[in-house]
This record gives sequence, structure tokens and C-alpha cells, in this order.
Amino acid sequence: MSRTSFAEIDCGVAQALEQVGDKWALVILRSAFLGLRRFDEFSTHLNIAPNILSNRLSKLVERDIMYKKKAPDDGRVIEYKLTPKGFELYPLVVFLNQWAERWLSSPDGARVVFTELRTDKEIRPIQVLSEEGDVLTARDVKISGGTAGSQVMEDAHRIVAARRKKAKT
Amino acid sequence: MSRTSFAEIDCGVAQALEQVGDKWALVILRSAFLGLRRFDEFSTHLNIAPNILSNRLSKLVERDIMYKKKAPDDGRVIEYKLTPKGFELYPLVVFLNQWAERWLSSPDGARVVFTELRTDKEIRPIQVLSEEGDVLTARDVKISGGTAGSQVMEDAHRIVAARRKKAKT
Repeated sequence: MSRTSFAEIDCGVAQALEQVGDKWALVILRSAFLGLRRFDEFSTHLNIAPNILSNRLSKLVERDIMYKKKAPDDGRVIEYKLTPKGFELYPLVVFLNQWAERWLSSPDGARVVFTELRTDKEIRPIQVLSEEGDVLTARDVKISGGTAGSQVMEDAHRIVAARRKKAKT
Repeated sequence: MSRTSFAEIDCGVAQALEQVGDKWALVILRSAFLGLRRFDEFSTHLNIAPNILSNRLSKLVERDIMYKKKAPDDGRVIEYKLTPKGFELYPLVVFLNQWAERWLSSPDGARVVFTELRTDKEIRPIQVLSEEGDVLTARDVKISGGTAGSQVMEDAHRIVAARRKKAKT
């Protein structure tokens, strides 16, 4: 039997994806980081069908990634804003943009540039860094079980070990 | 008329999502970073229906995120490996895991721990950093047009400016 939900997979990546692993949810988040807040703003900007937008906003609120608040200038208007949990997704949005600029770039160069407000200097590429601050690739990193442990990781390690053992014999 | 494809949106985030914004594609990538390579390995590990797995692997190959190669020990077996473009998605996988550990954690603590192979010390959290290496939030960063420019960004800025102007009057 195959899976229907990612929430039941005991793996952080799968559980994060269950919450934000949807294209529309992620472009809504990107737009929220660009300052959009209201249903009609997202709707106009993203050219998204109202039922899909409504569904994705509800899910983001349900998962505590966005919250609803009355507009300061008009109590009849609802605004959708990022919670701390949603606000912490900023590196994800920046990374997707940087990766796209590297690998799917326009021939005319960068579409957007991220600079630090205070210094007006470009931010760094998002990278995996060692405790000392060195840039690491997947080959420099070891994944092991934490205090809670992970069946998923152990299963993957077992599969890799079995293949290697078989290749040697 | 609403959109059907993200590829036509002139925005790096949307275009990156068109390529990797799919839950299955991202768990396949996570498994590849854990060392899995073969169809039956992904299939067993992820408990994924063969037609979905086959479809997602083909798309990842089509988009130059993975490539196919004959297994070194058995030329009849195909292995799927990460291309440089796919290998560079490592920060995305690490970030999703770290975000999940912070916001969707198990009561027993961390499921997995990422350490640098060379030093055995835990890697840093993935963050947005200034040129000088300071941690930045979305509030510290300005997004402006690059050499190619971005209609999407300009449109979002226009919407936000219009709302602010209206609130003041």
C-alpha cells in the first residue's frame, strides 16, 4: 500500500513538505515576504483562482504559518501576515530564488537582487556551513540519529550498506 | 484566466518550484542525499507507487537534477545520481529538516543530527547572512530589480505602495 500523507513519515523533510511542499503555498509565502497581505492583493498579483487561494491561505493559517488580522485602516478587511514560524521560512524563499538565478537564469542577468538594508551590500548565497563557518557540501556532512532517533534514516543507511556489501562480494 | 504553469511566471521562486516544488520530487532528492540510487531502493524506502516514482525520476532527469548511469557492479541496473544542479539543492533539504526540527519537533528531541565529517561538530542552522556574515531576517533585506529586471517584483511593490498610500489618505 502506498502513502497518502507525508505527515506520517517520521522524517523532518517529509513533515515540512506536508506543511509547505505545495507550489501555490510557496508563491503565496514569497508574495507575503514581498509585502502582500490581502486576499485581493494575492489574487491580483498571482493570477490565482479564488478557490485555490482561499484553500491555501486557510491551510497556511491552520498550520500556524500565517495568521489573520483586521486591517489597521479598515476593520472589515482581513490581512494575512506571517507568524514567527512562517517568517522563519525566509531562507527557503531566498534559496529557491538564488538557485533559480544560478541554474535557470535569464540571459539578461539577475531578475532581482537582495541587499542588506543597512549597508546596501548584496547578501551571501544560502549555504550549508560548518560550526567554524566553512562552506560544506553533502559529501562533507554525516547524518546520524538524534535523541529521538529516526527509522527513516536508519532504513536508508541499511539500504546503502546492503548495496555496498553486495557490490563487494 | 488563471495560471496553469509556473514556468511562465517571471520569478525565480516560481521557476524553481516548477522544477522541484513537488513533495515526491523533494523526498526523492532527500533520499538521494542519504545515498539511495536505484529504483527499487527508492521504491522500498519511500513506499511510493512505482508509476509515481517512475514519473518523478523521469522529470528529475529531464530537468537535469538527476542523471542515469549504469551501476558499476551490474550494467543491467540503472542508478539515479544527482547532477551538479541537483547536488546544489542540499541547503534546501537541510533547511527543511532544520525548520521541521524547530517547529514540528518530536517531544523526544532531534530525529537526526547533521555533523561535519572532518570535525564531528554540528553544522550551523541555514540562515540568510549579510556580506559581513551577520544573520538577517526578511526585515533587514531589500529586494530590487537586477539587470534583467522583474515585472513580478515591481507589481508586488506597486500593490504594497498603493495600499500604504490609501491607508494614509
